[in-house]
Amino acid sequence: MWHGRFSGKPDKLMQEFSESVSFDKRLWREDIEGSLAYAAELQRIGILTEKELADIKRGFEQVRAEIESGKFEWKVELEDVHMNIESRLTALIGDAGKKLHTGRSRNDQVGTDFKTWCNTRAIELQNEVNHLVRQIGGRAEESVDVIIPAYTHMQRAMPVRLAHHLLAYLAMLDRDEEAFHGSREGSSNYSPLGSSACSGNSFPVDMSMLAQEMRMEYPARNSMDAVSDRDFALDLVYACAKCMTHLSRIAEDLIIWSSAEFGFVTLGDAVTTGSSIMPQKRNPDACELVRGKTGRVVGHLMGLFTLLKGLPMTYNRDLQEDKEAVFDATDQTLACLRVMALVFSKENFKVNKERIQAHLDSGAGYMEAMNVADWLVLQGVPFRDGHDITGRLVKYCEQNKKRFADLTAADLAAVDKRLKPELLKELSLEALVERKQVYAGTAKARVLERLAELKTWLGEKG
Amino acid sequence: MWHGRFSGKPDKLMQEFSESVSFDKRLWREDIEGSLAYAAELQRIGILTEKELADIKRGFEQVRAEIESGKFEWKVELEDVHMNIESRLTALIGDAGKKLHTGRSRNDQVGTDFKTWCNTRAIELQNEVNHLVRQIGGRAEESVDVIIPAYTHMQRAMPVRLAHHLLAYLAMLDRDEEAFHGSREGSSNYSPLGSSACSGNSFPVDMSMLAQEMRMEYPARNSMDAVSDRDFALDLVYACAKCMTHLSRIAEDLIIWSSAEFGFVTLGDAVTTGSSIMPQKRNPDACELVRGKTGRVVGHLMGLFTLLKGLPMTYNRDLQEDKEAVFDATDQTLACLRVMALVFSKENFKVNKERIQAHLDSGAGYMEAMNVADWLVLQGVPFRDGHDITGRLVKYCEQNKKRFADLTAADLAAVDKRLKPELLKELSLEALVERKQVYAGTAKARVLERLAELKTWLGEKG
Amino acid sequence: MWHGRFSGKPDKLMQEFSESVSFDKRLWREDIEGSLAYAAELQRIGILTEKELADIKRGFEQVRAEIESGKFEWKVELEDVHMNIESRLTALIGDAGKKLHTGRSRNDQVGTDFKTWCNTRAIELQNEVNHLVRQIGGRAEESVDVIIPAYTHMQRAMPVRLAHHLLAYLAMLDRDEEAFHGSREGSSNYSPLGSSACSGNSFPVDMSMLAQEMRMEYPARNSMDAVSDRDFALDLVYACAKCMTHLSRIAEDLIIWSSAEFGFVTLGDAVTTGSSIMPQKRNPDACELVRGKTGRVVGHLMGLFTLLKGLPMTYNRDLQEDKEAVFDATDQTLACLRVMALVFSKENFKVNKERIQAHLDSGAGYMEAMNVADWLVLQGVPFRDGHDITGRLVKYCEQNKKRFADLTAADLAAVDKRLKPELLKELSLEALVERKQVYAGTAKARVLERLAELKTWLGEKG
Amino acid sequence: MWHGRFSGKPDKLMQEFSESVSFDKRLWREDIEGSLAYAAELQRIGILTEKELADIKRGFEQVRAEIESGKFEWKVELEDVHMNIESRLTALIGDAGKKLHTGRSRNDQVGTDFKTWCNTRAIELQNEVNHLVRQIGGRAEESVDVIIPAYTHMQRAMPVRLAHHLLAYLAMLDRDEEAFHGSREGSSNYSPLGSSACSGNSFPVDMSMLAQEMRMEYPARNSMDAVSDRDFALDLVYACAKCMTHLSRIAEDLIIWSSAEFGFVTLGDAVTTGSSIMPQKRNPDACELVRGKTGRVVGHLMGLFTLLKGLPMTYNRDLQEDKEAVFDATDQTLACLRVMALVFSKENFKVNKERIQAHLDSGAGYMEAMNVADWLVLQGVPFRDGHDITGRLVKYCEQNKKRFADLTAADLAAVDKRLKPELLKELSLEALVERKQVYAGTAKARVLERLAELKTWLGEKG
Repeated sequence: MWHGRFSGKPDKLMQEFSESVSFDKRLWREDIEGSLAYAAELQRIGILTEKELADIKRGFEQVRAEIESGKFEWKVELEDVHMNIESRLTALIGDAGKKLHTGRSRNDQVGTDFKTWCNTRAIELQNEVNHLVRQIGGRAEESVDVIIPAYTHMQRAMPVRLAHHLLAYLAMLDRDEEAFHGSREGSSNYSPLGSSACSGNSFPVDMSMLAQEMRMEYPARNSMDAVSDRDFALDLVYACAKCMTHLSRIAEDLIIWSSAEFGFVTLGDAVTTGSSIMPQKRNPDACELVRGKTGRVVGHLMGLFTLLKGLPMTYNRDLQEDKEAVFDATDQTLACLRVMALVFSKENFKVNKERIQAHLDSGAGYMEAMNVADWLVLQGVPFRDGHDITGRLVKYCEQNKKRFADLTAADLAAVDKRLKPELLKELSLEALVERKQVYAGTAKARVLERLAELKTWLGEKG
Repeated sequence: MWHGRFSGKPDKLMQEFSESVSFDKRLWREDIEGSLAYAAELQRIGILTEKELADIKRGFEQVRAEIESGKFEWKVELEDVHMNIESRLTALIGDAGKKLHTGRSRNDQVGTDFKTWCNTRAIELQNEVNHLVRQIGGRAEESVDVIIPAYTHMQRAMPVRLAHHLLAYLAMLDRDEEAFHGSREGSSNYSPLGSSACSGNSFPVDMSMLAQEMRMEYPARNSMDAVSDRDFALDLVYACAKCMTHLSRIAEDLIIWSSAEFGFVTLGDAVTTGSSIMPQKRNPDACELVRGKTGRVVGHLMGLFTLLKGLPMTYNRDLQEDKEAVFDATDQTLACLRVMALVFSKENFKVNKERIQAHLDSGAGYMEAMNVADWLVLQGVPFRDGHDITGRLVKYCEQNKKRFADLTAADLAAVDKRLKPELLKELSLEALVERKQVYAGTAKARVLERLAELKTWLGEKG
Repeated sequence: MWHGRFSGKPDKLMQEFSESVSFDKRLWREDIEGSLAYAAELQRIGILTEKELADIKRGFEQVRAEIESGKFEWKVELEDVHMNIESRLTALIGDAGKKLHTGRSRNDQVGTDFKTWCNTRAIELQNEVNHLVRQIGGRAEESVDVIIPAYTHMQRAMPVRLAHHLLAYLAMLDRDEEAFHGSREGSSNYSPLGSSACSGNSFPVDMSMLAQEMRMEYPARNSMDAVSDRDFALDLVYACAKCMTHLSRIAEDLIIWSSAEFGFVTLGDAVTTGSSIMPQKRNPDACELVRGKTGRVVGHLMGLFTLLKGLPMTYNRDLQEDKEAVFDATDQTLACLRVMALVFSKENFKVNKERIQAHLDSGAGYMEAMNVADWLVLQGVPFRDGHDITGRLVKYCEQNKKRFADLTAADLAAVDKRLKPELLKELSLEALVERKQVYAGTAKARVLERLAELKTWLGEKG
Repeated sequence: MWHGRFSGKPDKLMQEFSESVSFDKRLWREDIEGSLAYAAELQRIGILTEKELADIKRGFEQVRAEIESGKFEWKVELEDVHMNIESRLTALIGDAGKKLHTGRSRNDQVGTDFKTWCNTRAIELQNEVNHLVRQIGGRAEESVDVIIPAYTHMQRAMPVRLAHHLLAYLAMLDRDEEAFHGSREGSSNYSPLGSSACSGNSFPVDMSMLAQEMRMEYPARNSMDAVSDRDFALDLVYACAKCMTHLSRIAEDLIIWSSAEFGFVTLGDAVTTGSSIMPQKRNPDACELVRGKTGRVVGHLMGLFTLLKGLPMTYNRDLQEDKEAVFDATDQTLACLRVMALVFSKENFKVNKERIQAHLDSGAGYMEAMNVADWLVLQGVPFRDGHDITGRLVKYCEQNKKRFADLTAADLAAVDKRLKPELLKELSLEALVERKQVYAGTAKARVLERLAELKTWLGEKG
């Protein structure tokens, strides 16, 4: 029908250029589902007979079986998933297959199929985020008592519990889960089915009912917008891009931590590669690939924006270019979430406590200094004096090649009388960590609270 | 304090390179607001006396007055908005000004200031979207009875009410309003204040209360994430990019509609430019600039993603580069929304009904053909036959140089007996429009319903 | 060897995540070519015997034959194209196959393969640009005498020859040809082979000779840069993105020109789609898809930049993500160039001269006005007066509903005495066009000159 | 004139929205220069008298003086730099100022101004790249004898000379210098002046002479392309984006190297910030900002692509949005190049040789192992056996907690007889480095050669 008017066959070059079935066949489940919903409406309003509807259902059962078993023959000359399936249906059940398209257009059909696919995918992504959250949560529970340096500007800044550091990742991922959920709440939640080519269906199908059948809350409110809107695709790819950006930051931490110089963690064989003759070289390939794939997903988002910019109303063929970006962005994000879960599995994420301790023992950074200043403030020492005294204490340490851990009451007194012996017990990293009792702080009680909340929430998620 | 350790002054080149006050001074209101909230907490927990708190409040009143009156002297050598304000406060009220920073870091301070600013901005954007919605809604109400061709592939596809076309824009903008609202619901809703440099505040400030004071619902859950997270900036700029993409599509329509060849609308002098000697040349500059600015805003989003990719925990100075992108993206989007509201004002958006009618009368496109096919289906004519008959009728029109509007009962009969005279009254564009009675369709009743819903909703918005 | 150290098999998930053979097998020709060049060097320096070299050559002949005939079995567990080919070679000829890797690393191997592939691709792209240039050039030759309105701001601005408009496209495409040529002149022209993993080969292979064998002018100058540089990929994808942006602008023109309202051209069946019952609807799908694919290619460029940003020296596994972007960007650009050549073929690009003339005859736009002003300047009328007189003449036309073509000597005199009868012959669009005699102008002589230059240049290209 | 036809004043909102003088005034020098060139042509062809030309020259002298001294009053109501300058000129010298615009349009005027500006900027960027090359070259000369680990996958891979590592940066920067040079060779090299609004100038100005005056090699070949082409802006911003990506990679290395854990370099006070009480915390702010600014520049490139996508011929007001992106992209890149030169100055780039040596002495990584395998190959030991022996030697070291440096002839013999005592002297990192004698390798002779070439080349640059 599409090419019905043309005498000659379109050029093979053009056929290959314009076909979409090679990729949009991924929508086959949604296409059948949407057609079944639409057929039921056509029967309700009298366009299809009960017999025809039954034939259509039966026909689709067979099509589904053929596709699932790999026997379905996808034909490039039938252009897209819709024509391929309709054509096979008609071959199986006759003209009722063609009647199915009454009042419908590929414009509202593809919009409905694709939105439904995106919504299903978003749920998969939510689940995969939650799986990763569980893995990291597991490692966090095991590392509440491991103290590591936290960095600002890649410089040691403050000691924190490793569990606290991992909770930062969990906070990011929690936002991702919400973002994937949110991607189903906007444009995705409005079903285009019934909008036809652009002005609405000529037959009185019930768009609300069709929406419900496709698991969307509302019918689209405007047929022209319905067939030209691709916000749902942007929203999903945006959530992917944000998630990948988070994963890239987590990957960066792990890559740095597994360098010989840091050595905080050793990643397992399953997620690294090595060399037969350089046994200590464990390339963190999984993390590097995750970091690298971030660009790809961000690129897809950019591509979609460029695609949509300046398009006039309503459906333009340009929109066919929306799918591959979404397919690849979600494929990559799902794969990266799964691989990061593998990275954070008990087998593959090994914390090198001794190595971390050795780093901390070396005393580099005087991270304890801030504690001294704070302690003096609490003793009522004026703010300015507090900083001055601390500065002198650090200088004393440097000159005497002492770490804070080596200081004695006599050392303190030598610097300033206000540095009382009680201060000594405040000088450990443990004490410094325990001072951070605010809601978001790294004190043990807070970290345990946050982990408990997370567990409750994941429990609710089921 | 930041540079306290250094003997020499940092190079002038570096000072200019690293300063941010030239742009982050836009955060001054939020900075004072955040400091006042923090000071109250410090007093509550005994770090500040009541007298000191009163001094701080008084000092800030003066700082605020100085800034508002333009008398405040912003100093590049004080680097950023925070140091400029703190330094002036200390100059005004003495050491209490310095105590204010006890336990706080610029890391959680800037996060809080910037989130608060973004949240305020998102509300402005919502309001401006609603203003544009009102303007377009007004034009839609006036054009319910104007029928225009709707296009797919820039080819005339179906007749629609102009109001229906405008409702497509309103559906887009409604999603934008929701997106700006949504941008305040994620990361934006978690206050970092109390996270300090990265591990949490050493003094027991109540982060929930601080969040409340800054009009956020929750305290951040993890101090490390709190100072390194910039999802809120991404979310706001993403909403801007999506909104701009919508505006670019609306602008494209208007630019095409104001060409000599289309001539559907004449845009007013205020939003076009012309030439003294070519009076019919009315360049739709406002729309072109809106379309052009889309790239800029999308570019800012891409810039932010690239900025964040692969950054290790926690705060890195790279993050200073987050602000200008957000400032410009929101400035541009606000300006474009305002200008589009001007474009759609009664004065500037003139519909050329005669010109549109002339186009429709020319009969180009045989948009009525689909109606014939549908009508035949309803008469019980088999689907295949219906299409065949319609095809023959169109060919008849072409051969006889008749428009559908020119057809008589005899013409119909000459083509096929099943084309009964009753069909004639179905052949008008009006009839074609009125057949689209589905929820999202262009039939008058539907368009009026959608407009009424919109009014109710805007009424609730106030 | 890569995984030699590991006791267990890497997880299947990870295998699928990290394999590249599913896409990098496209590099097989270059991989064999590079290995043959390298083998010859190894033999020259005594690492391989003549017999071993002969075995290797023979082995590669068979590998090549197997791949070309589709019989080669690509194995995911062998990860990439390099290992797949080496492994098969070794199976065929024994240990000499393994010796081939002596001193080489996959880091310099993949860099060399990929650069060589990109260079070959750039030549294909140059050829395809030239093919499109020939097609458009053909249409330009045929349309030297067709005058159309040129637009600024989508408003009619000046009459030009259609050939002149098409020459604008040729100027863009000429820059693209240069850009693809240029993409082979930078990083692409420095062969990494001999850089080994990152510090250089331990065996004295001659990098200059290896470069020559791979058709590059120079050996890489630094082994660390050589294995981590991906500028050549950026350069090629950038040239593609620019070319696609040009094509998107050309496509936009054609889409607008084929609307019912403009109707300047009718695109042929091979590059449009229609509807069986709406015969005048000819959707310019080819052009829309080209315009849509622009986003995709720009997205790939963005993806590559994001990928590279902030990567530390030297090779990181992230770089594996460079290939698919380049493959798809060049595939799409090649396809779009070919399809646009089809669009501009004699069969598919039909100019509607009558329709254009009808538009021009309608007189809309008073494009001739500028001519009057210029003519007055040449008569010595002061600049200001000239504009004033022209303005009054236009007003006179409007009031008397006359087109410029309708004006008589009496009309002119009625407006201003200085509008002498001689002016009448200057008022045609033809005259206006012929006034543009500057080098880049639309006067006939200039257009013919430019076309002749183009032909000469294409002739030289062969 | 632009708004001449309009009775009312355009809205203030629209004025602010559409003005460009607030940013395009940066083009003032080029605007005057272009106008002087154009005036000379007008005089040559008789449109201007000698007296008028002299007046114009005199007038521009004053305008130039006023702008340079800051006395020029830029007026938003005059929209852009062109109108501001022309208006002032006319105020100073009368109507000759207006005649200057005869036959010219702001479309070719702005194209010419902006191209000229870009070309000048590209030269500045080339110079700044060369300045940075000199700084890094200086540090390289000083560090030929410092051996550091080179990394692949952030894992120690091979020892290299620090100078060799720095030469990798120089190779990148050399490509940047070429890219900035190249940005002046494409579209930038074709002068639009004489193209007028879009179809060419009506007066016979010599476009070649105008091109020459503006330091471009050729006149534009097509007037329509000339006013709508922005490839020159893309090319310059692309070169900036690539340069910034290189700088981001260099910055990443330095940030990692200045961490406490690596400690390879200490960056000077001028390019870092610290804390008064944490003396060892030296935040590498300069490098972080450079890395962060990469996103911004890449974002501008994406913005420009999105801007241009799908624009119809010829000039559209969207193009006004081209300038700020180019201004900011080049400003940021210039600043980053300057700051990186400061970072690499002798004062600020301090290599911690003892720290590096300590890392190497710790023996981590067995980087020497590859050397053993290579040595065995050269002894004629079969490839497979060589790897097996090496593997066993590494295992022996691990079991006996020996570094390669600790091995004795007896140790070697205990592993395999083929490990002869001569091997011992091959086991040093120095020996490993010296084996890399290929052109791009890290052997001393090669590094010195490359540095010498660089010096020669810079000398030629002057």
